[in-house]
Amino acid sequence: MNTQSIEQYMDQLGRLARAASRQAATVDSGAKNKALLTAATAIEDQAARLVIENNRDLESGREHGLDAALLDRLELTVARIAGMAEGLRQVAALADPVGEITDMRYMPSGIQVGRMRVPLGVIGIIYESRPNVTADAASLCLKSGNACILRGGSEALHSNLALADCLRQGLEAAGLPETLVQVINTRDRTAVGKLLTMDQYVDVIIPRGGKGLIERVMKESSIPVIKHLHGVCHVYIDDQADIDKAVEIAYNSKTHRYGVCNAMETLLVADSVAGSVLPRLAQRYADAGVELRGCDKTRTILADIKAATDEDWESEYLAPILAIRIVDGIDQAIQHIDQYGSQHTDAIVTEDYSKSRKFLRQVDSSSVLVNASTRFSDGFEYGLGAEIGISTDKLHVRGPVGLEGLTSQKYIVLGDGHIRQ
Amino acid sequence: MNTQSIEQYMDQLGRLARAASRQAATVDSGAKNKALLTAATAIEDQAARLVIENNRDLESGREHGLDAALLDRLELTVARIAGMAEGLRQVAALADPVGEITDMRYMPSGIQVGRMRVPLGVIGIIYESRPNVTADAASLCLKSGNACILRGGSEALHSNLALADCLRQGLEAAGLPETLVQVINTRDRTAVGKLLTMDQYVDVIIPRGGKGLIERVMKESSIPVIKHLHGVCHVYIDDQADIDKAVEIAYNSKTHRYGVCNAMETLLVADSVAGSVLPRLAQRYADAGVELRGCDKTRTILADIKAATDEDWESEYLAPILAIRIVDGIDQAIQHIDQYGSQHTDAIVTEDYSKSRKFLRQVDSSSVLVNASTRFSDGFEYGLGAEIGISTDKLHVRGPVGLEGLTSQKYIVLGDGHIRQ
Repeated sequence: MNTQSIEQYMDQLGRLARAASRQAATVDSGAKNKALLTAATAIEDQAARLVIENNRDLESGREHGLDAALLDRLELTVARIAGMAEGLRQVAALADPVGEITDMRYMPSGIQVGRMRVPLGVIGIIYESRPNVTADAASLCLKSGNACILRGGSEALHSNLALADCLRQGLEAAGLPETLVQVINTRDRTAVGKLLTMDQYVDVIIPRGGKGLIERVMKESSIPVIKHLHGVCHVYIDDQADIDKAVEIAYNSKTHRYGVCNAMETLLVADSVAGSVLPRLAQRYADAGVELRGCDKTRTILADIKAATDEDWESEYLAPILAIRIVDGIDQAIQHIDQYGSQHTDAIVTEDYSKSRKFLRQVDSSSVLVNASTRFSDGFEYGLGAEIGISTDKLHVRGPVGLEGLTSQKYIVLGDGHIRQ
Repeated sequence: MNTQSIEQYMDQLGRLARAASRQAATVDSGAKNKALLTAATAIEDQAARLVIENNRDLESGREHGLDAALLDRLELTVARIAGMAEGLRQVAALADPVGEITDMRYMPSGIQVGRMRVPLGVIGIIYESRPNVTADAASLCLKSGNACILRGGSEALHSNLALADCLRQGLEAAGLPETLVQVINTRDRTAVGKLLTMDQYVDVIIPRGGKGLIERVMKESSIPVIKHLHGVCHVYIDDQADIDKAVEIAYNSKTHRYGVCNAMETLLVADSVAGSVLPRLAQRYADAGVELRGCDKTRTILADIKAATDEDWESEYLAPILAIRIVDGIDQAIQHIDQYGSQHTDAIVTEDYSKSRKFLRQVDSSSVLVNASTRFSDGFEYGLGAEIGISTDKLHVRGPVGLEGLTSQKYIVLGDGHIRQ
């Protein structure tokens, strides 16, 4: 397609999505669930075809020299296919947020006022190579009554189109418009630029991927964006910490998984307990193969480790590397988090009541934890049932984004002929 | 100031606002209320000075040929000054939303998860000539724990600076940073452009003014915007309407005040009741001096009125003019609202249960009313205590925006040494 025909093609997707979203906003939960369950079965039944289409992507990826990590993310194994089907069934089992009415109250004028939860409309999702996002994102958008336009990584196009076909079968079986879920069927990057400026058709853009993608979207989009920028997460071990808990939490926060946004990247330790906690932790980290980098004080306790620089304090390693800084106490810890953190997820370990309250109140991050691993900052762990991502924004939704984050609330007013006096 | 020094000046305001916002986020309600009450007294005590400063603006406005309507909006009368002081006291009396914890629940893992309401941070407010917005906006930002940077109309600069000084006296008395409320002290328009792109310091922009201002802000801002675009509000009189209620609601929605965003601009009437309801309404509107413009069918009943064009269906008159269209029934009414409306405020008049439910569910507007005047779509009428505006956006906040709309929620997690398995 040339640029002009891509413009027309995207315009067409937008118009169809807008029309479909109007229908979806008031559709029964039963029909949405039927679509999800049918799509889950289709994914399982057509696993062989999904693998074939995925192999086309993998072969082409190898030809284009994609590295092993990217190829791994691109691959649809049998287990991942089963996982997608299971994910759709989990979303079907969640309560439908649409139409929920809350806060109905009578006002002095006699009118009754409340709020009704409604879909956002059309959601554009831009993501990178993992094709399972196609099923995850589409299912959450559908359940929350939204239409979606999906733009996956160009290297995953065959996989994504095959998955979209399974979703289409679900929509068809449920009598819903097929255009509720549309995958952009071109590798041309101008399609992304067009998507980001179709504000007459698209209500919100959700980018999922690396910092480069997010920054491009922030720069080009004329549509509001729900985004996850990065996670420089901290654990602060207070001077009143239970040392056993501190060791377990700091170890788990770093080593439970390395490549995730809610892994700890910097450990802050109160001066007075550093001597007892750091040697124990250093041993555990050494066994796990975690490289430590410390401030000067830290290196007087752990002599063998590299010096940490300012760059370390700002780094999201996503790797078995940890920066460690010894601080005077809670105030310096909060100040460090404020200066170097990313407002994502930060935890304190303390047995002190007032300090736990202070940390909860003063740390301005999407998740703030007391005596728990940063790895809990997750939609499933928070009981959202599923998540489309974690928002590091402040507006609209902060932290893990589930079905509720894909909806809005309108005011409803019930009267009996009431007029303003 | 030249462009470079304006850049530096704005940068300075931004840095100070960001620092102040950190302090404000965790300040006691008592201190915030003391600041508001002291500022209210200062406004009353210094009314004479406010009038003098306002006169400087009025004289300069007359010299520059401002029209009578603009001069009226610019004027600080004694009654308006008293109104501002009263407004500050009302905001002081509202419950503090900051720190409110909701939805605390234990999860299967044993952690306890909930949400804490937190300020947005720094709010930039851009408004036109009415100086009372300075006091209103600052008070709501302060109470919700936010710092604000205010940019009023350049013709109101002396008035705004004098008001800012009263607010400063309140902040000082309460021991709060004066930089919580800053009025941009230059008429240069490049300051606005700079404000709209200081995303490192400003978390949200709220423009208040005409469509031209809003569109400029939408185009230039790299910061999320909470905006009110326009209000093309409808009343639909259903074939099952109580005709007496219908007449009162349609009359009140149009004539209670003309220049407001929640005034009805188009009346939709079901064919089967048009003959009984329109002549009664036409008489009432004629007495009030409202000009009617109708569709062809309407003009077979009201022979004397002008024909309505497509432009009328899209018009926010803000004036004693009303467009009238006769529709087949509720479906065509909803379709008309969908096509021509502005998703602001729409009402149905009906005694039919199923149609009331259908209208509430299907009309995608920030306020949807049954058997009540569109004029109720207002923060005070909805019990918010005060409003900074009405949002026609879908993201973050929809409809009247009170203190809650100036806040966000972060997740908090309480554990006892919990780690992810």
